[in-house]
Amino acid sequence: MANFYINPNNVVHELPKNNQPKFFMFGVPSYTNLGDQAISLAERKYIEAEFPDYQYIEIVEEDDDAAIPVVKQCITKQDIVAFTGGGNMGNLYLNHERARRKVFSTFTDNLTISFPQSIHFEDNEAGLYEQKLSQEAYQKNPNLVLVARDAQSYHRMQTTFNNKVIFTPDMVLYMQYKKFPKLKRQGSLFVLRRDAEKVVKDKVIQNMKALLRAYQPIEFTDTVLDTVKTITPDTREKLFRKELSLFSGQKLIITDRWHAMVFSVLTGTPCLLMGNSYGKGKHAYFDWLEYINWVSYTDEEDTERIKQQINAVMEAKTHAYDLIPDFKQLHDLIAHNR
Amino acid sequence: MANFYINPNNVVHELPKNNQPKFFMFGVPSYTNLGDQAISLAERKYIEAEFPDYQYIEIVEEDDDAAIPVVKQCITKQDIVAFTGGGNMGNLYLNHERARRKVFSTFTDNLTISFPQSIHFEDNEAGLYEQKLSQEAYQKNPNLVLVARDAQSYHRMQTTFNNKVIFTPDMVLYMQYKKFPKLKRQGSLFVLRRDAEKVVKDKVIQNMKALLRAYQPIEFTDTVLDTVKTITPDTREKLFRKELSLFSGQKLIITDRWHAMVFSVLTGTPCLLMGNSYGKGKHAYFDWLEYINWVSYTDEEDTERIKQQINAVMEAKTHAYDLIPDFKQLHDLIAHNR
Repeated sequence: MANFYINPNNVVHELPKNNQPKFFMFGVPSYTNLGDQAISLAERKYIEAEFPDYQYIEIVEEDDDAAIPVVKQCITKQDIVAFTGGGNMGNLYLNHERARRKVFSTFTDNLTISFPQSIHFEDNEAGLYEQKLSQEAYQKNPNLVLVARDAQSYHRMQTTFNNKVIFTPDMVLYMQYKKFPKLKRQGSLFVLRRDAEKVVKDKVIQNMKALLRAYQPIEFTDTVLDTVKTITPDTREKLFRKELSLFSGQKLIITDRWHAMVFSVLTGTPCLLMGNSYGKGKHAYFDWLEYINWVSYTDEEDTERIKQQINAVMEAKTHAYDLIPDFKQLHDLIAHNR
Repeated sequence: MANFYINPNNVVHELPKNNQPKFFMFGVPSYTNLGDQAISLAERKYIEAEFPDYQYIEIVEEDDDAAIPVVKQCITKQDIVAFTGGGNMGNLYLNHERARRKVFSTFTDNLTISFPQSIHFEDNEAGLYEQKLSQEAYQKNPNLVLVARDAQSYHRMQTTFNNKVIFTPDMVLYMQYKKFPKLKRQGSLFVLRRDAEKVVKDKVIQNMKALLRAYQPIEFTDTVLDTVKTITPDTREKLFRKELSLFSGQKLIITDRWHAMVFSVLTGTPCLLMGNSYGKGKHAYFDWLEYINWVSYTDEEDTERIKQQINAVMEAKTHAYDLIPDFKQLHDLIAHNR
């Protein structure tokens, strides 16, 4: 039976019967990647703040299949369908891609929005095969709009699909730095992925660790939690705020996770970001965050140069920034649905 | 008296009287910067190829003031007004910025398009003063759409102006590599700016020159010509093709000019691009050209590392690329005017 999260702590099995326009967000993560959880939180906050006349209804990923026919039966022309953003469009995370195809090819009469994503289909037989399946599914929907969260993905989406493509930052950057706590900072934190996208060499990490002797204690973690088995819309905000508190207490973050850089931006924490297998963090950094002084990107493996970059972010003062205007294409898209 | 270039070699002083919708392109360069000349050439080719029902009329920059009242008197609702693209929005090239303000604040009832630009207002009293003047002028036009040619400019335009902003590559990238000549390659060419945007150190250039002993002869030039005093729509294509032939005959281009990299892309010539004072080439490279193997960007001053980058572009094979889909937001904008 499908669960619909009307509010994070109000789960229903039947869609509410009222005349309010609905905003259906599919694919909401229940897995423990806090970056993706922060995205789904920001998506709700964005729609509730900017378009309060919509009733926002979330469907977590494992309920997608059961929810599709229920929504299909009740949906009206004024409603909007969306699929959650992230870095999983392509053939690396097929469960997400398959759900996306199903949602996009079903609700072809409604404005359908693929929230800000990075895209990566591998340039091999399997990648091209999956890309073709996605092309076939996406092109069934003339009202589908894809949102790219970095320029590389904007180019790739436009050359891969016939759908309209717009360009905004990652949704988590809709949230504001000034709203998060300031704590006493101590020590440094390595936030490192352990998945197939990892490319940073262990030797580079060991050299960095040696560099940071002065910033004890040195802890290691990942933004994918292993302390809980699942995260739902009703538990994510508390865990997200706890993660931001962890970041706020550090003198320095070293990471290869894009969202660890985003959390560092939100908390004013000095951060050095390294690459993943296909450049999604690098491109998003150069597109949106290069002028934010307390975070930086590196492809360096030379210890002396890494040291200079670490010193630069640690000496930087926090300053005002404003990424809200960068969501204007998304805002206009939704505003013009009425 | 205002000159209107109906065709590059057909200059008239009165607007043609017919029912064909008009596309007025203001600010067309007559100065000898071949990058800006290539932009204005590409703009004409783009509109004539994609929207052949429009009559394309160019006004070179020194005629802007005289042409504005003439166009104002004849313009009809179906016509489109545009201002040429480039890297001069801001307070560094005030003659361009002042002309832009005048055009944007005059034709407020017509779709008005600022063609793909980079933007840079300096963060000082003069810069902020000029920015305020531009904000006041631009906001008078509810039908004005700004086009950014890199993500940094997209962000800056959206945070500076209330107007709609869209995102495409530089117009010269609308032109296609395969259309240009293949010549026998010999020697290397430094294409270096001599203006206020120059930041590359002479010492770095001298070190590179020493590196390239094997690629004789080594010549120096700039994409700003000093062999002619002025370039007009009727002379630009020939000079542009001559420049591309020059590039096609080189084994390697070293440059700090964004358009020298673009010409290298069009001719399949290995190229290393260095920075200017505010990162316009760097951002455009990462946004649109990073996957093109025979060109690369560097901020390096270390000779050994520069050598590695030069070797990488020289060993790269040319390959197909397609940037036409990246102009889709511009295409949709113009197509929806009818």
